[in-house]
Amino acid sequence: MSQTVNIGKMAVLIATLSEDELAHFQDQLKGYTYCSGKAGSMNMQKVISSVETAAKRNEIIQDEVYRETHALYHAILEALEGVTRGQLAIGDTMRTVGLRFTVVRGRPYDRPQEGEWIAVSFYGTIGAPVKGLEHETIGLGINHI
Amino acid sequence: MSQTVNIGKMAVLIATLSEDELAHFQDQLKGYTYCSGKAGSMNMQKVISSVETAAKRNEIIQDEVYRETHALYHAILEALEGVTRGQLAIGDTMRTVGLRFTVVRGRPYDRPQEGEWIAVSFYGTIGAPVKGLEHETIGLGINHI
Amino acid sequence: MSQTVNIGKMAVLIATLSEDELAHFQDQLKGYTYCSGKAGSMNMQKVISSVETAAKRNEIIQDEVYRETHALYHAILEALEGVTRGQLAIGDTMRTVGLRFTVVRGRPYDRPQEGEWIAVSFYGTIGAPVKGLEHETIGLGINHI
Amino acid sequence: MSQTVNIGKMAVLIATLSEDELAHFQDQLKGYTYCSGKAGSMNMQKVISSVETAAKRNEIIQDEVYRETHALYHAILEALEGVTRGQLAIGDTMRTVGLRFTVVRGRPYDRPQEGEWIAVSFYGTIGAPVKGLEHETIGLGINHI
Amino acid sequence: MSQTVNIGKMAVLIATLSEDELAHFQDQLKGYTYCSGKAGSMNMQKVISSVETAAKRNEIIQDEVYRETHALYHAILEALEGVTRGQLAIGDTMRTVGLRFTVVRGRPYDRPQEGEWIAVSFYGTIGAPVKGLEHETIGLGINHI
Amino acid sequence: MSQTVNIGKMAVLIATLSEDELAHFQDQLKGYTYCSGKAGSMNMQKVISSVETAAKRNEIIQDEVYRETHALYHAILEALEGVTRGQLAIGDTMRTVGLRFTVVRGRPYDRPQEGEWIAVSFYGTIGAPVKGLEHETIGLGINHI
Repeated sequence: MSQTVNIGKMAVLIATLSEDELAHFQDQLKGYTYCSGKAGSMNMQKVISSVETAAKRNEIIQDEVYRETHALYHAILEALEGVTRGQLAIGDTMRTVGLRFTVVRGRPYDRPQEGEWIAVSFYGTIGAPVKGLEHETIGLGINHI
Repeated sequence: MSQTVNIGKMAVLIATLSEDELAHFQDQLKGYTYCSGKAGSMNMQKVISSVETAAKRNEIIQDEVYRETHALYHAILEALEGVTRGQLAIGDTMRTVGLRFTVVRGRPYDRPQEGEWIAVSFYGTIGAPVKGLEHETIGLGINHI
Repeated sequence: MSQTVNIGKMAVLIATLSEDELAHFQDQLKGYTYCSGKAGSMNMQKVISSVETAAKRNEIIQDEVYRETHALYHAILEALEGVTRGQLAIGDTMRTVGLRFTVVRGRPYDRPQEGEWIAVSFYGTIGAPVKGLEHETIGLGINHI
Repeated sequence: MSQTVNIGKMAVLIATLSEDELAHFQDQLKGYTYCSGKAGSMNMQKVISSVETAAKRNEIIQDEVYRETHALYHAILEALEGVTRGQLAIGDTMRTVGLRFTVVRGRPYDRPQEGEWIAVSFYGTIGAPVKGLEHETIGLGINHI
Repeated sequence: MSQTVNIGKMAVLIATLSEDELAHFQDQLKGYTYCSGKAGSMNMQKVISSVETAAKRNEIIQDEVYRETHALYHAILEALEGVTRGQLAIGDTMRTVGLRFTVVRGRPYDRPQEGEWIAVSFYGTIGAPVKGLEHETIGLGINHI
Repeated sequence: MSQTVNIGKMAVLIATLSEDELAHFQDQLKGYTYCSGKAGSMNMQKVISSVETAAKRNEIIQDEVYRETHALYHAILEALEGVTRGQLAIGDTMRTVGLRFTVVRGRPYDRPQEGEWIAVSFYGTIGAPVKGLEHETIGLGINHI
């Protein structure tokens, strides 16, 4: 089962690169819909809500269909595992300075019955509770939708 | 405290991009030493050993100094949390088809006393035990060295 | 958004009850397809394979479609979290004496666009490595498919 | 070592079934003391307190004896692992619509020296932070008391 | 509710100190029964079996009573969380050089109805898969019995 | 690679023993700098801040150098895994009655290039949300600095 384009790689690049840098990858982004945004805090509930709201406003997922919200929710959780490196419980104690998120939706597989998939990626810097000190972090979650 | 270059972003790009694609980012890679390799299985012990061996052979870390191995080891674990999305216990049950790893070492901070840091990134496809079915995954771990 | 029948409750009852006991709930089971089986060990890889194989043989999910396997796989993992009570890593060290699993598929929501969902439940007795000593355990995972 | 009745199965049925449905199982419930209640939120501290308070008011456990509270506490945590599917950290971000809990106490083993055991079960619907969207969840914890 | 002696502190000291050093604490050990041993590997199943076998041979717990094995089992798991620092899944990949364990049983509380409790402690050095490199680790688990 | 003194054992003893008891171990403490303090709550963010503040005020780590804060932060997290026995998510729901912490810094290895290491230990009593009921807990984390 071959993939025509890598939906996860695309999500990571959109979250990570500047607009100029992303321009090199426009060909691979064709056929995908996506949106980006900023998470203003590391409070788990707020991060999840920010991503869900952005995905609905930008019509990446349908507002009224629970199965689409359910698919997105688990992709967000998977991505947050990477951001917090398996310590979701610690997430709330961390500060964020510029954490960006991206939601990408598309058909990464050749076979039509594989349907649509969704990828969520976070990239930015997080820090321990002490101010002014942080390093980068990334996360990626993928789900069928 | 500003960062001159983003060591984590560099690790992610080296793990994710083809050689041609990476050529766009040569400027940002200056001053870093790095190596890449392939993890042939998802057995945790083998993955950790593969990365450690590659990092020593390519002289990214010093073979004989425990504190460098210790720094690398925890960066690998952090990166694996992203790859297995917080379920390290499940790692051994997954198959890998082309999981690449990258180890990057350098001085991402302006202030000299922040010294050297190390970043580990994985990118590739993993799958459930059933053959032929997989999707992408990524992980990033960062540590002082 | 109301549910006509509770797919999770059905999965739990099929896994938990004897045939005679389950007869009281035949009305609620209408419209669902399901299958059951026994997991012969607590080796995570074998448990996952047993459930996937049973679900495909009984045509609960389509053999050739990755998105259906992916949906089932995550429902199994969720159910195993209940079985191992959050300690998947310890799963392999436990013995099982009669762990049954059930996979149920159907449309639990009134609105047609919510589509099909899948529920996986485990029920049985597990024990510490010392033979002859065990108590009951249960798990339930639900996913859109 | 045979079990005369399955304390875990009883806890699950009491939490899951309506009063009418439970009537089919009255024989198996003989010899057990139990109580039920509703958890009004998914705040972990409040859920734990609700179950402890109910168990004491209904004299399932002794108010003044720490070892009984300790036994109940760990059974609650085990059951919550099933409810949150291993992601206790995420529990606080979820909403609950009708999560019921049950505490059952009794002697499930034939041999008198095995003494009393306690089982805690949760059943209900939980949802992501977005309102109106949820699915079922279950949990079971068992401990000696 | 006051404690006459600290059962956990005693378990930690027995696991940590040399015989000469432990002599300073003989007064506080009165009234406790305990045993010690060495865990020859970090394989979780073997570690658990080693501790259980030692506790039974030394008659710290009764061989034939499941509730005592159950109490010990959960105390061991709690102690292993400290040893592996929350990464039980990684335990199997680590090497051990001299990991000692201690099981202590007694009545740490003044009130007679609080009964007996059991404490398990591990202390020693563990290391990443690469040979010759390790640092110390400790763990403590406590349960009613 | 031999250790001259065990930095982790020292951290555990300082956190666990009374001043009189610790006097027996003065010889082994030579060459280490350390400080102790009390954590007034189990709120993760406050615990981490308390330890960091104490370590900086007592000049165990340098205030202005991120890599030292980073090393300490991960040692604290490792130690908290022992305290909460792998359930950091539950930490916030527990009460503390006299949880002490210790930070120790020194050179535990003979070879000069292994440099300095840091150990963090917690010891005290924690309890479920119900007041007046608690038992002991310990944790140890070690990192290169």
